Amino acid sequence: MLDSRLHRARQLTAEQGWTALLVTPGADLFHLIGHVAAPLERLTCLVLPVEGEPALILPRLERPKAEQAPVRLIDYPDGTDFIALLADALPVPTGVIGVVDAMPAAHLVPAQRLLPGVRWEVAGRALAPLRAVKSADEIAELTSAGTAVDRVHQQMHRWLRPGRTEAEVAADLAGAIRDAGHARTDFVIVASGPNAASPHHSSGARVIEPGDAVVVDIGGTMPSGYCSDCTRTYVIGPKAPPGFAEMYAVLQEAQRAAVAAVRPGVPAEAVDAAARDHITAHGYGDLFVHRTGHGIGLDTHEEPYIVAGNAEPLVAGTTFSIEPGIYRPGAYGARIEDIVVCTPTGARRLNTTPTDLVHL
Amino acid sequence: MLDSRLHRARQLTAEQGWTALLVTPGADLFHLIGHVAAPLERLTCLVLPVEGEPALILPRLERPKAEQAPVRLIDYPDGTDFIALLADALPVPTGVIGVVDAMPAAHLVPAQRLLPGVRWEVAGRALAPLRAVKSADEIAELTSAGTAVDRVHQQMHRWLRPGRTEAEVAADLAGAIRDAGHARTDFVIVASGPNAASPHHSSGARVIEPGDAVVVDIGGTMPSGYCSDCTRTYVIGPKAPPGFAEMYAVLQEAQRAAVAAVRPGVPAEAVDAAARDHITAHGYGDLFVHRTGHGIGLDTHEEPYIVAGNAEPLVAGTTFSIEPGIYRPGAYGARIEDIVVCTPTGARRLNTTPTDLVHL
Repeated sequence: MLDSRLHRARQLTAEQGWTALLVTPGADLFHLIGHVAAPLERLTCLVLPVEGEPALILPRLERPKAEQAPVRLIDYPDGTDFIALLADALPVPTGVIGVVDAMPAAHLVPAQRLLPGVRWEVAGRALAPLRAVKSADEIAELTSAGTAVDRVHQQMHRWLRPGRTEAEVAADLAGAIRDAGHARTDFVIVASGPNAASPHHSSGARVIEPGDAVVVDIGGTMPSGYCSDCTRTYVIGPKAPPGFAEMYAVLQEAQRAAVAAVRPGVPAEAVDAAARDHITAHGYGDLFVHRTGHGIGLDTHEEPYIVAGNAEPLVAGTTFSIEPGIYRPGAYGARIEDIVVCTPTGARRLNTTPTDLVHL
Repeated sequence: MLDSRLHRARQLTAEQGWTALLVTPGADLFHLIGHVAAPLERLTCLVLPVEGEPALILPRLERPKAEQAPVRLIDYPDGTDFIALLADALPVPTGVIGVVDAMPAAHLVPAQRLLPGVRWEVAGRALAPLRAVKSADEIAELTSAGTAVDRVHQQMHRWLRPGRTEAEVAADLAGAIRDAGHARTDFVIVASGPNAASPHHSSGARVIEPGDAVVVDIGGTMPSGYCSDCTRTYVIGPKAPPGFAEMYAVLQEAQRAAVAAVRPGVPAEAVDAAARDHITAHGYGDLFVHRTGHGIGLDTHEEPYIVAGNAEPLVAGTTFSIEPGIYRPGAYGARIEDIVVCTPTGARRLNTTPTDLVHL
């Protein structure tokens, strides 16, 4: 008897006209069979054929960790030609086979060589319904993750102070994220002064000064496997840089407008447009250099993407970030990011701290 | 003027008869151009053609982090067809193109679709000389990493005590690994009693008891990017399980024999055989269920692999683990792991704590 997630994955695979789905380590594998595996040089791969029994191919030394998986296990000792094992596990090694987005070339290319009659497709988009629409339990886990990361932002005054380097603040935040209940810290961006104009700045040696605007974008993974991600912008001391407060007010309103635009059936790109149009109308359009958001769940970035060109309608139960930013190169930058869940009546924010500019 | 690492990578690419090499985020990209990028849905890819100038394709919001890279930057805004950009960046989009082992299917498969005239090869083995043979600076970094992780093992009595769960000990060790100088903790295995018979056990709810043998396998990444990895086996209290001490003595001698077998020109598999033959001669051969070791550097697992079937001769400057283990299912297990560097005269251990069984 197949578990319902496996059953649904097989259905989606069949709907694509594929003969099988291959799932290597990552969030997809965890979601489908609860198995956590490092993406190693050794092959771990769930083979889910449309006809026939699924099987998990894995290194023999990993087998004890997989005994609870609801599929047949095919283990192999070191030194085995595991690509041949993979081919043997496919009941029909022809037609089209879907592979998860994360499958590494080290395993895909040899499989392509061994099975020249197969056409290969990336499964990410086709499998999106599996993970993008969250169950009530998953939304509860993401709510906990949001609360945990909010707790860190609420105590930002403990760490973000003038005279400290970005890297020092970031190291403290990495610990605070774990202390707040995450199993691990995934990323910490502390971007101060002109560095805040780089959206993915690496926290560095710059000393934080009075008058700096500082973008703090932090996230981690909870023991459940679900992720948090939240950005707030702080100003050090009472005085913001010239022009910053006006810009921030536009950004805050743009973020609100995007949150307000969320509703089932609305195209993902309309949410992006809601933020972007407001920013553009106020003359900052060229300075908003990235999409408005990304789905979040077992991965920090997953479907749905809130980006121009994504006309897919939003579905109730999807969870994603809304994070417009405005970046003036050489001067300053700001970003506001909340995770929201799309409910039948609109967005519910999973990050609930105010988005007002905080002076520390 | 190309940096020497890029130059060497291009040479190796040319020697394979390939027209270009594609390098997506991971240790290869960091090694070649010093750029750290998350393996995201957005494409980041170094295009290194045999003829023509190399270029790094990357999301526009990542550009400020890449300004120091010794290659031309091609950035793109969100929503761009970055696979088309990739194809355009190839001066000769034909022949054979090598891709790094880690390149995800999400980027590889669309590139294959767009460039049907290209044959694709995995570059890992061909590029092995680039990263497997370490410079003096790299060996110094790996020595520091070894010293840092040794410091954690030397203080194991602080955390590994009866009455605590594996998970509690593991959480403390995760912090201790960072406190010892690592930028991050990569893995912590605390496998006690019968759990130690699973080589890759996840630290769990089992309470550690007097008389347990406990395998502790820990590692992290230093601020330099270089990794540590060291395993010791401990016994809780004065009394080991029946038969354990005899088994451990065989394991210790096997590990010594493998270390002693290391020398330039010796096939990697001969080092595996040195450990395995000793263990087999003492009747434990069936219980040594994995290879003897793996290379280590910017990745915890990389070339060269110390495994039966790998006849490649060892080269001075390579660094790898020597970690035989003996696992009696349902009863107990033990493993001893040191990182060594192959010098002209033999192995030098980078983990220098004694391998004798430690009673805590």
